[in-house]
Amino acid sequence: MGRLRRRSDTLEFLANAKDVVVLEPQIHKGKWRKVFGNDNPIHVELGMGKGKFISEMSLKYPEINFIGIDLYDELVRKASEKSYALREEHGVSDIDNLRLLLMNIEKIEEVFDENEIDQIYLNFSDPWPKKRHASRRLTHSNFLKKYRQVLKVEGEIHLKTDSVSLFEFSLNSFADMDLKMKNISLDLHREETPENHVFTEYEEKFVEQGVRIHRCEVIL
Amino acid sequence: MGRLRRRSDTLEFLANAKDVVVLEPQIHKGKWRKVFGNDNPIHVELGMGKGKFISEMSLKYPEINFIGIDLYDELVRKASEKSYALREEHGVSDIDNLRLLLMNIEKIEEVFDENEIDQIYLNFSDPWPKKRHASRRLTHSNFLKKYRQVLKVEGEIHLKTDSVSLFEFSLNSFADMDLKMKNISLDLHREETPENHVFTEYEEKFVEQGVRIHRCEVIL
Ligand SMILES: C[S@@+](CC[C@H](N)C(=O)[O-])C[C@H]1O[C@@H](n2cnc3c(N)ncnc32)[C@H](O)[C@@H]1O
Ligand SMILES: C[S@@+](CC[C@H](N)C(=O)[O-])C[C@H]1O[C@@H](n2cnc3c(N)ncnc32)[C@H](O)[C@@H]1O
Repeated sequence: MGRLRRRSDTLEFLANAKDVVVLEPQIHKGKWRKVFGNDNPIHVELGMGKGKFISEMSLKYPEINFIGIDLYDELVRKASEKSYALREEHGVSDIDNLRLLLMNIEKIEEVFDENEIDQIYLNFSDPWPKKRHASRRLTHSNFLKKYRQVLKVEGEIHLKTDSVSLFEFSLNSFADMDLKMKNISLDLHREETPENHVFTEYEEKFVEQGVRIHRCEVIL
Repeated sequence: MGRLRRRSDTLEFLANAKDVVVLEPQIHKGKWRKVFGNDNPIHVELGMGKGKFISEMSLKYPEINFIGIDLYDELVRKASEKSYALREEHGVSDIDNLRLLLMNIEKIEEVFDENEIDQIYLNFSDPWPKKRHASRRLTHSNFLKKYRQVLKVEGEIHLKTDSVSLFEFSLNSFADMDLKMKNISLDLHREETPENHVFTEYEEKFVEQGVRIHRCEVIL
Protein backbone atom coordinates (compact mmCIF):
# COMPACT_ATOMS: atom_id res chain seq x y z
CA MET A 1 0.00 0.00 0.00
CA GLY A 2 2.93 2.30 0.79
CA ARG A 3 3.44 3.53 -2.73
CA LEU A 4 -0.21 4.05 -3.58
CA ARG A 5 -1.08 7.74 -3.61
CA ARG A 6 -4.45 8.54 -2.09
CA ARG A 7 -6.53 10.72 -4.37
CA SER A 8 -8.58 13.43 -2.68
CA ASP A 9 -11.81 12.46 -4.40
CA THR A 10 -11.72 8.78 -3.58
CA LEU A 11 -14.56 8.66 -1.08
CA GLU A 12 -16.72 10.59 -3.52
CA PHE A 13 -15.73 8.20 -6.28
CA LEU A 14 -16.67 5.18 -4.16
CA ALA A 15 -20.00 6.74 -3.16
CA ASN A 16 -20.84 7.13 -6.85
CA ALA A 17 -19.74 3.64 -7.84
CA LYS A 18 -22.81 2.06 -6.29
CA ASP A 19 -23.17 -0.63 -8.97
CA VAL A 20 -20.03 -2.32 -7.74
CA VAL A 21 -18.89 -0.75 -4.45
CA VAL A 22 -20.74 -1.43 -1.22
CA LEU A 23 -19.77 1.04 1.49
CA GLU A 24 -22.04 -0.22 4.24
CA PRO A 25 -21.86 -3.96 3.83
CA GLN A 26 -23.32 -4.74 7.27
CA ILE A 27 -26.81 -3.84 6.11
CA HIS A 28 -26.75 -6.76 3.67
CA LYS A 29 -25.84 -9.41 6.24
CA GLY A 30 -27.93 -12.49 5.48
CA LYS A 31 -29.23 -10.91 2.27
CA TRP A 32 -26.34 -11.09 -0.18
CA ARG A 33 -28.27 -13.31 -2.54
CA LYS A 34 -30.84 -10.54 -2.73
CA VAL A 35 -28.09 -8.05 -3.56
CA PHE A 36 -27.07 -10.23 -6.50
CA GLY A 37 -30.65 -11.06 -7.40
CA ASN A 38 -30.01 -14.80 -7.67
CA ASP A 39 -29.07 -17.92 -5.70
CA ASN A 40 -25.69 -18.50 -7.30
CA PRO A 41 -22.73 -19.42 -5.10
CA ILE A 42 -20.81 -16.57 -3.48
CA HIS A 43 -17.00 -16.52 -3.59
CA VAL A 44 -15.10 -13.94 -1.54
CA GLU A 45 -11.51 -12.77 -1.89
CA LEU A 46 -10.08 -11.50 1.38
CA GLY A 47 -7.52 -8.78 0.67
CA MET A 48 -8.09 -8.31 -3.06
CA GLY A 49 -5.58 -5.46 -3.49
CA LYS A 50 -6.05 -3.79 -6.88
CA GLY A 51 -8.67 -6.37 -7.80
CA LYS A 52 -7.18 -8.01 -10.89
CA PHE A 53 -8.10 -11.52 -9.77
CA ILE A 54 -11.61 -10.90 -8.52
CA SER A 55 -12.68 -8.78 -11.50
CA GLU A 56 -11.27 -11.22 -14.05
CA MET A 57 -12.94 -14.11 -12.22
CA SER A 58 -16.27 -12.30 -12.27
CA LEU A 59 -16.06 -11.92 -16.04
CA LYS A 60 -14.97 -15.50 -16.55
CA TYR A 61 -17.54 -17.16 -14.30
CA PRO A 62 -20.86 -15.31 -14.69
CA GLU A 63 -22.70 -18.06 -12.80
CA ILE A 64 -20.76 -17.29 -9.61
CA ASN A 65 -21.12 -14.15 -7.49
CA PHE A 66 -17.82 -12.58 -6.47
CA ILE A 67 -17.06 -10.27 -3.58
CA GLY A 68 -13.70 -8.56 -3.15
CA ILE A 69 -12.70 -7.13 0.21
CA ASP A 70 -9.97 -4.70 1.11
CA LEU A 71 -9.11 -2.37 3.94
CA TYR A 72 -8.02 0.60 1.83
CA ASP A 73 -10.37 2.91 -0.03
CA GLU A 74 -7.75 3.63 -2.67
CA LEU A 75 -7.49 -0.09 -3.44
CA VAL A 76 -11.24 -0.56 -3.59
CA ARG A 77 -11.27 2.35 -6.01
CA LYS A 78 -8.50 0.82 -8.13
CA ALA A 79 -10.39 -2.46 -8.16
CA SER A 80 -13.63 -0.85 -9.29
CA GLU A 81 -11.76 1.11 -11.97
CA LYS A 82 -10.30 -2.19 -13.13
CA SER A 83 -13.71 -3.80 -13.32
CA TYR A 84 -15.09 -0.83 -15.29
CA ALA A 85 -12.17 -1.06 -17.69
CA LEU A 86 -12.70 -4.81 -18.12
CA ARG A 87 -16.38 -4.28 -18.90
CA GLU A 88 -15.51 -1.81 -21.60
CA GLU A 89 -12.80 -4.00 -23.03
CA HIS A 90 -15.21 -6.89 -23.30
CA GLY A 91 -18.24 -4.85 -24.32
CA VAL A 92 -20.23 -5.90 -21.26
CA SER A 93 -22.68 -3.28 -20.08
CA ASP A 94 -22.48 -4.17 -16.40
CA ILE A 95 -21.04 -6.77 -14.10
CA ASP A 96 -23.92 -8.01 -12.01
CA ASN A 97 -21.92 -10.66 -10.23
CA LEU A 98 -19.21 -8.52 -8.60
CA ARG A 99 -19.23 -6.42 -5.46
CA LEU A 100 -16.30 -4.70 -3.76
CA LEU A 101 -16.34 -4.03 -0.04
CA LEU A 102 -14.29 -1.53 1.91
CA MET A 103 -13.93 -3.23 5.26
CA ASN A 104 -11.67 -4.99 7.73
CA ILE A 105 -11.66 -8.77 7.37
CA GLU A 106 -11.77 -9.00 11.15
CA LYS A 107 -15.40 -7.91 10.92
CA ILE A 108 -16.40 -10.58 8.43
CA GLU A 109 -19.00 -12.00 10.83
CA GLU A 110 -20.78 -8.63 10.96
CA VAL A 111 -21.19 -8.66 7.19
CA PHE A 112 -22.04 -12.28 6.37
CA ASP A 113 -24.49 -14.59 8.01
CA GLU A 114 -23.82 -18.22 8.90
CA ASN A 115 -23.29 -20.36 5.79
CA GLU A 116 -23.72 -17.37 3.51
CA ILE A 117 -20.40 -17.81 1.66
CA ASP A 118 -19.47 -20.76 -0.56
CA GLN A 119 -15.76 -20.18 -1.00
CA ILE A 120 -12.95 -17.95 0.22
CA TYR A 121 -9.79 -16.96 -1.66
CA LEU A 122 -6.68 -15.92 0.23
CA ASN A 123 -4.26 -14.65 -2.41
CA PHE A 124 -0.83 -13.49 -1.31
CA SER A 125 -2.02 -12.37 2.08
CA ASP A 126 0.39 -10.30 4.12
CA PRO A 127 2.86 -12.77 5.69
CA TRP A 128 3.38 -10.92 9.01
CA PRO A 129 6.69 -12.71 9.55
CA LYS A 130 7.29 -11.58 13.13
CA LYS A 131 6.11 -14.05 15.75
CA ARG A 132 4.36 -11.40 17.80
CA HIS A 133 2.23 -10.59 14.75
CA ALA A 134 1.15 -14.20 14.19
CA SER A 135 -2.45 -13.45 15.13
CA ARG A 136 -2.69 -11.02 12.20
CA ARG A 137 -2.00 -13.73 9.65
CA LEU A 138 -5.22 -14.48 7.79
CA THR A 139 -4.82 -18.22 8.43
CA HIS A 140 -4.49 -17.85 12.18
CA SER A 141 -6.99 -20.06 14.01
CA ASN A 142 -8.88 -16.95 15.18
CA PHE A 143 -9.54 -16.04 11.55
CA LEU A 144 -10.29 -19.64 10.56
CA LYS A 145 -12.95 -19.77 13.24
CA LYS A 146 -14.56 -16.65 11.79
CA TYR A 147 -14.43 -18.07 8.28
CA ARG A 148 -16.04 -21.27 9.54
CA GLN A 149 -18.95 -19.17 10.81
CA VAL A 150 -19.69 -17.52 7.48
CA LEU A 151 -18.70 -20.38 5.14
CA LYS A 152 -21.25 -23.05 4.31
CA VAL A 153 -20.58 -26.59 5.54
CA GLU A 154 -17.79 -28.10 3.42
CA GLY A 155 -17.05 -24.64 2.04
CA GLU A 156 -13.50 -24.20 0.86
CA ILE A 157 -10.58 -21.84 1.33
CA HIS A 158 -8.23 -21.55 -1.63
CA LEU A 159 -4.87 -20.20 -0.58
CA LYS A 160 -1.99 -19.04 -2.79
CA THR A 161 1.17 -17.39 -1.53
CA ASP A 162 4.81 -16.82 -2.36
CA SER A 163 5.68 -16.70 1.34
CA VAL A 164 7.34 -19.86 2.63
CA SER A 165 6.79 -18.83 6.22
CA LEU A 166 3.11 -17.96 5.76
CA PHE A 167 2.53 -21.20 3.87
CA GLU A 168 4.22 -23.24 6.58
CA PHE A 169 2.20 -21.44 9.24
CA SER A 170 -1.01 -22.02 7.27
CA LEU A 171 -0.43 -25.75 6.80
CA ASN A 172 0.14 -26.16 10.53
CA SER A 173 -2.87 -24.05 11.31
CA PHE A 174 -5.06 -26.19 9.03
CA ALA A 175 -3.59 -29.42 10.39
CA ASP A 176 -4.01 -28.33 14.01
CA MET A 177 -7.69 -27.67 13.35
CA ASP A 178 -8.03 -31.07 11.63
CA LEU A 179 -9.13 -29.49 8.39
CA LYS A 180 -9.08 -31.59 5.25
CA MET A 181 -6.48 -30.27 2.78
CA LYS A 182 -6.13 -31.01 -0.91
CA ASN A 183 -4.29 -29.95 -4.04
CA ILE A 184 -1.22 -28.88 -2.11
CA SER A 185 1.49 -27.47 -4.35
CA LEU A 186 4.92 -26.11 -3.41
CA ASP A 187 5.53 -24.84 -6.92
CA LEU A 188 2.26 -24.11 -8.64
CA HIS A 189 3.79 -23.09 -11.95
CA ARG A 190 6.40 -25.84 -12.08
CA GLU A 191 4.60 -27.45 -14.99
CA GLU A 192 2.81 -25.50 -17.69
CA THR A 193 0.13 -23.22 -16.24
CA PRO A 194 -3.38 -24.20 -17.41
CA GLU A 195 -4.71 -21.77 -20.01
CA ASN A 196 -7.71 -20.77 -17.94
CA HIS A 197 -5.63 -19.92 -14.84
CA VAL A 198 -6.46 -16.49 -13.42
CA PHE A 199 -3.35 -14.80 -12.05
CA THR A 200 -3.55 -12.30 -9.23
CA GLU A 201 -1.50 -9.13 -9.46
CA TYR A 202 1.10 -10.41 -7.02
CA GLU A 203 1.19 -13.83 -8.60
CA GLU A 204 1.99 -12.40 -12.02
CA LYS A 205 4.84 -10.36 -10.59
CA PHE A 206 6.28 -13.28 -8.61
CA VAL A 207 6.06 -15.75 -11.48
CA GLU A 208 7.94 -13.28 -13.70
CA GLN A 209 10.67 -13.12 -11.06
CA GLY A 210 10.84 -16.90 -10.87
CA VAL A 211 9.56 -16.97 -7.28
CA ARG A 212 7.80 -20.22 -6.37
CA ILE A 213 4.08 -20.07 -5.61
CA HIS A 214 2.53 -22.32 -2.93
CA ARG A 215 -1.08 -23.43 -2.99
CA CYS A 216 -3.35 -25.26 -0.61
CA GLU A 217 -7.10 -25.84 -0.65
CA VAL A 218 -8.93 -26.61 2.58
CA ILE A 219 -12.39 -27.83 3.37
CA LEU A 220 -13.69 -26.00 6.41
CA MET B 1 24.71 -46.21 -3.86
CA GLY B 2 26.43 -45.90 -7.21
CA ARG B 3 29.75 -44.86 -5.79
CA LEU B 4 29.88 -47.41 -3.00
CA ARG B 5 32.30 -50.20 -3.79
CA ARG B 6 31.09 -53.63 -2.80
CA ARG B 7 33.65 -55.50 -0.77
CA SER B 8 34.00 -59.21 -1.49
CA ASP B 9 33.71 -60.24 2.15
CA THR B 10 30.56 -58.28 2.96
CA LEU B 11 28.16 -61.20 3.34
CA GLU B 12 30.67 -62.92 5.60
CA PHE B 13 31.04 -59.72 7.60
CA LEU B 14 27.27 -59.43 8.03
CA ALA B 15 26.95 -63.08 9.05
CA ASN B 16 29.50 -62.47 11.80
CA ALA B 17 27.93 -59.21 13.02
CA LYS B 18 25.09 -61.06 14.72
CA ASP B 19 24.91 -58.67 17.68
CA VAL B 20 23.60 -55.92 15.42
CA VAL B 21 22.78 -57.34 11.97
CA VAL B 22 19.70 -59.50 11.43
CA LEU B 23 19.87 -61.35 8.12
CA GLU B 24 16.61 -63.27 8.38
CA PRO B 25 14.29 -60.76 9.97
CA GLN B 26 11.11 -62.68 9.05
CA ILE B 27 11.72 -65.22 11.78
CA HIS B 28 11.30 -62.48 14.41
CA LYS B 29 7.91 -61.30 13.19
CA GLY B 30 5.77 -60.63 16.24
CA LYS B 31 8.73 -61.22 18.55
CA TRP B 32 10.88 -58.12 18.22
CA ARG B 33 10.46 -57.25 21.88
CA LYS B 34 11.97 -60.64 22.65
CA VAL B 35 14.93 -59.85 20.39
CA PHE B 36 15.57 -56.68 22.39
CA GLY B 37 14.77 -58.35 25.68
CA ASN B 38 12.43 -55.59 26.87
CA ASP B 39 9.11 -53.84 26.17
CA ASN B 40 10.54 -50.50 25.12
CA PRO B 41 9.09 -48.72 22.08
CA ILE B 42 10.47 -49.70 18.69
CA HIS B 43 11.45 -47.01 16.18
CA VAL B 44 12.32 -48.00 12.61
CA GLU B 45 14.21 -46.03 9.96
CA LEU B 46 13.23 -47.05 6.44
CA GLY B 47 16.21 -46.57 4.13
CA MET B 48 18.91 -45.81 6.70
CA GLY B 49 21.78 -45.56 4.19
CA LYS B 50 25.12 -45.54 6.00
CA GLY B 51 23.32 -45.51 9.34
CA LYS B 52 24.56 -42.28 10.91
CA PHE B 53 21.12 -41.27 12.17
CA ILE B 54 19.92 -44.61 13.52
CA SER B 55 23.19 -45.45 15.30
CA GLU B 56 23.48 -42.01 16.90
CA MET B 57 19.83 -42.19 17.96
CA SER B 58 20.40 -45.59 19.56
CA LEU B 59 23.24 -44.19 21.65
CA LYS B 60 21.29 -41.10 22.61
CA TYR B 61 18.02 -42.81 23.56
CA PRO B 62 18.83 -46.10 25.32
CA GLU B 63 15.21 -46.50 26.43
CA ILE B 64 14.06 -46.84 22.80
CA ASN B 65 14.79 -49.80 20.52
CA PHE B 66 15.96 -48.79 17.05
CA ILE B 67 15.84 -50.75 13.82
CA GLY B 68 17.52 -49.56 10.63
CA ILE B 69 16.53 -51.04 7.28
CA ASP B 70 18.26 -50.89 3.94
CA LEU B 71 18.20 -52.77 0.68
CA TYR B 72 21.97 -52.95 0.16
CA ASP B 73 24.32 -55.25 2.03
CA GLU B 74 27.19 -52.81 1.66
CA LEU B 75 25.13 -50.10 3.40
CA VAL B 76 24.05 -52.41 6.19
CA ARG B 77 27.73 -53.21 6.63
CA LYS B 78 28.69 -49.51 6.69
CA ALA B 79 25.94 -48.90 9.24
CA SER B 80 27.12 -51.69 11.51
CA GLU B 81 30.72 -50.49 11.20
CA LYS B 82 29.48 -47.04 12.21
CA SER B 83 27.71 -48.42 15.25
CA TYR B 84 30.82 -50.39 16.28
CA ALA B 85 32.93 -47.24 15.91
CA LEU B 86 30.41 -45.23 17.98
CA ARG B 87 30.49 -47.84 20.76
CA GLU B 88 34.23 -47.63 20.91
CA GLU B 89 34.25 -43.86 20.83
CA HIS B 90 31.84 -43.73 23.77
CA GLY B 91 33.30 -46.68 25.64
CA VAL B 92 30.07 -48.66 25.48
CA SER B 93 30.59 -52.41 25.37
CA ASP B 94 27.54 -53.18 23.25
CA ILE B 95 24.47 -51.50 21.83
CA ASP B 96 21.54 -53.62 22.90
CA ASN B 97 18.93 -51.34 21.45
CA LEU B 98 19.96 -51.34 17.77
CA ARG B 99 19.35 -53.84 15.00
CA LEU B 100 20.08 -53.45 11.30
CA LEU B 101 18.07 -55.34 8.71
CA LEU B 102 18.99 -56.14 5.12
CA MET B 103 15.62 -56.18 3.42
CA ASN B 104 13.24 -54.50 1.01
CA ILE B 105 10.79 -52.11 2.67
CA GLU B 106 8.09 -53.54 0.44
CA LYS B 107 8.21 -56.64 2.61
CA ILE B 108 7.74 -54.80 5.88
CA GLU B 109 4.55 -56.72 6.65
CA GLU B 110 6.44 -60.02 6.50
CA VAL B 111 8.86 -58.82 9.16
CA PHE B 112 6.65 -56.97 11.63
CA ASP B 113 3.36 -57.96 13.13
CA GLU B 114 0.33 -55.69 13.51
CA ASN B 115 1.02 -52.81 15.93
CA GLU B 116 4.57 -53.99 16.52
CA ILE B 117 6.25 -50.69 15.62
CA ASP B 118 5.85 -47.41 17.53
CA GLN B 119 7.39 -44.96 15.10
CA ILE B 120 8.78 -44.79 11.57
CA TYR B 121 11.46 -42.42 10.25
CA LEU B 122 11.63 -41.58 6.58
CA ASN B 123 14.84 -39.61 6.13
CA PHE B 124 15.70 -38.30 2.68
CA SER B 125 13.94 -41.12 0.90
CA ASP B 126 14.61 -41.45 -2.81
CA PRO B 127 12.34 -38.86 -4.52
CA TRP B 128 11.54 -40.87 -7.67
CA PRO B 129 10.65 -37.70 -9.56
CA LYS B 130 9.19 -39.33 -12.65
CA LYS B 131 5.41 -39.72 -12.57
CA ARG B 132 5.54 -43.32 -13.71
CA HIS B 133 7.67 -44.13 -10.66
CA ALA B 134 5.25 -42.53 -8.18
CA SER B 135 4.34 -45.87 -6.63
CA ARG B 136 7.97 -46.35 -5.56
CA ARG B 137 7.90 -43.25 -3.38
CA LEU B 138 7.91 -44.35 0.25
CA THR B 139 4.91 -42.11 1.02
CA HIS B 140 2.73 -43.56 -1.73
CA SER B 141 -0.61 -44.73 -0.35
CA ASN B 142 0.38 -48.35 -1.01
CA PHE B 143 3.30 -47.94 1.38
CA LEU B 144 1.26 -45.94 3.89
CA LYS B 145 -1.23 -48.80 4.05
CA LYS B 146 1.59 -51.22 4.84
CA TYR B 147 2.97 -48.90 7.52
CA ARG B 148 -0.51 -48.65 9.02
CA GLN B 149 -0.52 -52.43 9.39
CA VAL B 150 2.70 -52.62 11.34
CA LEU B 151 2.47 -49.31 13.26
CA LYS B 152 0.56 -49.20 16.52
CA VAL B 153 -2.61 -47.12 16.65
CA GLU B 154 -1.63 -43.44 16.71
CA GLY B 155 1.91 -44.42 15.76
CA GLU B 156 3.80 -41.71 13.94
CA ILE B 157 5.81 -41.26 10.77
CA HIS B 158 8.53 -38.62 10.94
CA LEU B 159 9.54 -37.46 7.50
CA LYS B 160 12.49 -35.26 6.52
CA THR B 161 13.52 -34.50 2.96
CA ASP B 162 15.29 -31.96 0.81
CA SER B 163 13.11 -32.84 -2.15
CA VAL B 164 10.36 -30.30 -2.86
CA SER B 165 8.56 -32.71 -5.16
CA LEU B 166 8.66 -35.64 -2.73
CA PHE B 167 7.50 -33.38 0.09
CA GLU B 168 4.61 -32.04 -1.96
CA PHE B 169 3.66 -35.57 -2.98
CA SER B 170 3.84 -36.73 0.64
CA LEU B 171 1.65 -33.91 1.99
CA ASN B 172 -1.01 -34.71 -0.59
CA SER B 173 -0.71 -38.41 0.12
CA PHE B 174 -1.19 -37.80 3.86
CA ALA B 175 -4.06 -35.37 3.26
CA ASP B 176 -5.81 -37.72 0.83
CA MET B 177 -5.71 -40.45 3.46
CA ASP B 178 -7.05 -38.01 6.09
CA LEU B 179 -4.00 -38.45 8.27
CA LYS B 180 -3.35 -35.96 11.03
CA MET B 181 -0.20 -33.95 10.33
CA LYS B 182 1.84 -31.84 12.71
CA ASN B 183 5.10 -29.94 13.06
CA ILE B 184 5.24 -29.16 9.36
CA SER B 185 8.34 -27.21 8.40
CA LEU B 186 9.45 -25.97 5.00
CA ASP B 187 12.84 -24.93 6.31
CA LEU B 188 13.78 -26.99 9.32
CA HIS B 189 17.06 -25.23 9.98
CA ARG B 190 15.79 -21.69 9.37
CA GLU B 191 16.19 -20.89 13.03
CA GLU B 192 18.96 -22.25 15.19
CA THR B 193 19.02 -26.04 15.20
CA PRO B 194 18.34 -27.46 18.69
CA GLU B 195 21.50 -28.81 20.30
CA ASN B 196 20.13 -32.33 20.62
CA HIS B 197 19.13 -32.58 16.94
CA VAL B 198 20.42 -35.76 15.29
CA PHE B 199 21.42 -35.09 11.68
CA THR B 200 21.24 -37.82 9.06
CA GLU B 201 24.10 -38.18 6.61
CA TYR B 202 22.14 -36.54 3.79
CA GLU B 203 20.78 -33.83 6.05
CA GLU B 204 24.28 -32.79 7.12
CA LYS B 205 25.40 -32.54 3.51
CA PHE B 206 22.33 -30.57 2.43
CA VAL B 207 22.46 -28.14 5.32
CA GLU B 208 26.12 -27.42 4.51
CA GLN B 209 25.08 -26.62 0.94
CA GLY B 210 22.30 -24.34 2.17
CA VAL B 211 19.56 -26.60 0.78
CA ARG B 212 16.26 -26.27 2.64
CA ILE B 213 15.02 -29.28 4.61
CA HIS B 214 11.28 -30.08 4.83
CA ARG B 215 9.72 -31.95 7.72
CA CYS B 216 6.31 -33.37 8.45
CA GLU B 217 5.10 -35.67 11.21
CA VAL B 218 1.97 -37.75 10.69
CA ILE B 219 -0.20 -39.79 12.99
CA LEU B 220 -1.24 -42.96 11.25
C1 LIG C 1 -0.23 -8.44 -0.48
S1 LIG C 1 -1.77 -7.84 -0.97
C2 LIG C 1 -2.37 -9.05 -2.13
C3 LIG C 1 -3.35 -8.50 -3.11
C4 LIG C 1 -4.00 -9.48 -4.09
N1 LIG C 1 -4.77 -10.49 -3.37
C5 LIG C 1 -3.00 -10.14 -5.02
O1 LIG C 1 -2.79 -11.36 -4.88
O2 LIG C 1 -2.44 -9.47 -5.90
C6 LIG C 1 -2.74 -8.08 0.49
C7 LIG C 1 -3.97 -7.21 0.55
O3 LIG C 1 -4.73 -7.56 1.72
C8 LIG C 1 -5.28 -6.37 2.28
N2 LIG C 1 -5.55 -6.63 3.69
C9 LIG C 1 -4.65 -6.99 4.62
N3 LIG C 1 -5.24 -7.11 5.83
C10 LIG C 1 -6.54 -6.81 5.64
C11 LIG C 1 -7.68 -6.76 6.52
N4 LIG C 1 -7.54 -7.04 7.84
N5 LIG C 1 -8.87 -6.43 6.01
C12 LIG C 1 -8.99 -6.16 4.68
N6 LIG C 1 -7.96 -6.19 3.82
C13 LIG C 1 -6.76 -6.51 4.30
C14 LIG C 1 -4.20 -5.34 2.02
O4 LIG C 1 -4.75 -4.04 2.04
C15 LIG C 1 -3.66 -5.73 0.63
O5 LIG C 1 -4.34 -5.06 -0.39
C1 LIG D 1 18.88 -41.20 -0.18
S1 LIG D 1 19.27 -42.46 0.93
C2 LIG D 1 19.05 -41.71 2.53
C3 LIG D 1 19.89 -42.33 3.59
C4 LIG D 1 19.69 -41.84 5.03
N1 LIG D 1 18.31 -42.04 5.50
C5 LIG D 1 20.07 -40.38 5.20
O1 LIG D 1 19.15 -39.56 5.44
O2 LIG D 1 21.24 -40.03 5.12
C6 LIG D 1 17.90 -43.56 0.76
C7 LIG D 1 18.22 -44.98 1.22
O3 LIG D 1 17.02 -45.75 1.13
C8 LIG D 1 17.36 -47.07 0.70
N2 LIG D 1 16.16 -47.65 0.06
C9 LIG D 1 15.49 -47.18 -0.98
N3 LIG D 1 14.47 -47.98 -1.31
C10 LIG D 1 14.49 -49.00 -0.42
C11 LIG D 1 13.70 -50.17 -0.23
N4 LIG D 1 12.66 -50.43 -1.03
N5 LIG D 1 14.00 -51.01 0.78
C12 LIG D 1 15.07 -50.74 1.59
N6 LIG D 1 15.85 -49.65 1.46
C13 LIG D 1 15.57 -48.80 0.47
C14 LIG D 1 18.50 -46.83 -0.27
O4 LIG D 1 19.29 -47.99 -0.42
C15 LIG D 1 19.26 -45.68 0.38
O5 LIG D 1 20.26 -46.15 1.25
